[in-house]
Amino acid sequence: MLQNKAYRLRTRPQGTSGHDHFEFVSEPVGKPRSGEVLVKVLYLSLDPTNRIWMSDIPQYMEPVKVGEVMRGLGIGRVESSQSPSLKEGDLVSGLLGWQEYAIVDARTVTKLPDLDVPVEAHMGPVGMTGLTAYFGLLELGQPQAGETVVVSAAAGAVGSIVGQIAKIKGCRVVGLAGSDDKCTWLTKELGFDVAINYKKEDVGAALDKACPKGIDVYFENVGGQILEEVLKRVNLFARIPLCGLISGYNAERPVPGPYQFPQLLMKRVRLQGFIVFDFVQRFPEAVHQLAQWVREGRIKYRSTIVKGLDKAPDALNMLFTGDNTGKLFIEL
Amino acid sequence: MLQNKAYRLRTRPQGTSGHDHFEFVSEPVGKPRSGEVLVKVLYLSLDPTNRIWMSDIPQYMEPVKVGEVMRGLGIGRVESSQSPSLKEGDLVSGLLGWQEYAIVDARTVTKLPDLDVPVEAHMGPVGMTGLTAYFGLLELGQPQAGETVVVSAAAGAVGSIVGQIAKIKGCRVVGLAGSDDKCTWLTKELGFDVAINYKKEDVGAALDKACPKGIDVYFENVGGQILEEVLKRVNLFARIPLCGLISGYNAERPVPGPYQFPQLLMKRVRLQGFIVFDFVQRFPEAVHQLAQWVREGRIKYRSTIVKGLDKAPDALNMLFTGDNTGKLFIEL
Repeated sequence: MLQNKAYRLRTRPQGTSGHDHFEFVSEPVGKPRSGEVLVKVLYLSLDPTNRIWMSDIPQYMEPVKVGEVMRGLGIGRVESSQSPSLKEGDLVSGLLGWQEYAIVDARTVTKLPDLDVPVEAHMGPVGMTGLTAYFGLLELGQPQAGETVVVSAAAGAVGSIVGQIAKIKGCRVVGLAGSDDKCTWLTKELGFDVAINYKKEDVGAALDKACPKGIDVYFENVGGQILEEVLKRVNLFARIPLCGLISGYNAERPVPGPYQFPQLLMKRVRLQGFIVFDFVQRFPEAVHQLAQWVREGRIKYRSTIVKGLDKAPDALNMLFTGDNTGKLFIEL
Repeated sequence: MLQNKAYRLRTRPQGTSGHDHFEFVSEPVGKPRSGEVLVKVLYLSLDPTNRIWMSDIPQYMEPVKVGEVMRGLGIGRVESSQSPSLKEGDLVSGLLGWQEYAIVDARTVTKLPDLDVPVEAHMGPVGMTGLTAYFGLLELGQPQAGETVVVSAAAGAVGSIVGQIAKIKGCRVVGLAGSDDKCTWLTKELGFDVAINYKKEDVGAALDKACPKGIDVYFENVGGQILEEVLKRVNLFARIPLCGLISGYNAERPVPGPYQFPQLLMKRVRLQGFIVFDFVQRFPEAVHQLAQWVREGRIKYRSTIVKGLDKAPDALNMLFTGDNTGKLFIEL
């Protein structure tokens, strides 16, 4: 009988999460019922949102319940199907969970479209993080050629794509990242105009230098001190797509909002939270555009691949320490 | 020779402003040059923004310079004109300043349109505060019939109009105000569904009761604790027109942004700062609509009129203590 290995949430973390908060179980794999498919998980995406889902705080989906398999986005191969829409061997993406095998309703997963890009790209630039960058920047940020776009967590899976799309749209692009290596990657390979190592540089002074005409669009992934410094420098009618606030996800006590909050009023800023699923109806158009840019070499990407499901709890923390570059995922 | 009395800014206040921060001067009135008009000031609007203009902080206009006549919106009568566009006796509105006579470029004031409403209404519902309510609510808030609209400082010049427009648009309307009398005015006369006395009631519990279907639009005038409680209760895709943050204007040290800031992400809220002048091209259409509602009795208003220019510094503080209902202005 086929055995599944899975991480189930054991307790909710206060602060940093780790192995203690999960139970690593071995249990028999069931059989898909009508409409379901059995999927062997190949890759598991690790995203800041995994940490959010572990906490019982207001959020955009229900938190993972204690005892449930940890929620996670992944790519897998259909092993057996009880649905006419999928067949054995199909590659699918969806919320497969932190486990080796998933039995899911066939309607909740998507067959990977044929885009002539590596499977790895489906985890990044043409996957959810690429789509997040695409809709957040273009729909909410509405960057115009010649404007200055700043992005935090710029060497991350979302930020690195945001910056490249902004360059394609003719903007001046400034990224913030946490190491010199990342900064070099952003400017030398991805074409960012300036990259700021926020761990080493005076962020305010560096932004002054990098953004002589102020900031028109700020793609926000982190919150905290970087947001403060950006708000001091936003232009009239700036737009702030609010994608993440990772600097606060591990906080053990309430975190104040930005002291520069009144700048949103004074500069008539439009700040808007979003998640990628808000745009699900338009995924096909975006995926094809992103894939085209990837094939043309106009969007480059990196992955940080960690091997083995058992590494997932530790690897998740790489997002918080900045030990990944580009898309972080587990290869099973 | 005609003498002018004027308040000039003497020093910048830390915290609450008052007489000490102004110099009350008497000085000869000059003569209008070509293109200018001499205006006798009849009414001076007192608005929270007056306090902002006194501080050297980032803001949407230059702060008033020390030594300058205090900036203020007003209505006056043209005494003599060196411009073909205005003639003696015309009533005009514009930034006339805290003084008895103003000499201004004729292009910077607007002749009061003939709307068949009392002059007093030009200081409120069909003036800048009415326009602020109109554009902030309708353009940024985009309320839909059946949605729940919450407004803070609801018995103020802007808030009272916001609530009535929201009622006209078929919304459930909940206002927050600082006295039982104000709350009674809101529900009994203006048609608000619920009014909450935020000084007496538990705001969170009162909002829970008043907004059983959550909050779709929050018209923000105050910031602080009310914003926190609202953010806990916003619906998915809520809109927050950010009109003012008066609770912080007298602060002596930096004020943190809302602890509930991440709710903007989780609930995919659109928060947008604005000032009425962003919509100047569309003032005519809005003024006529507002005047029609006033004439039809669908928008009611109150004024708190303080007599005498010399009362202006003290009267301004009524906005912060909540001693006004509706539009506060000085009658000279």
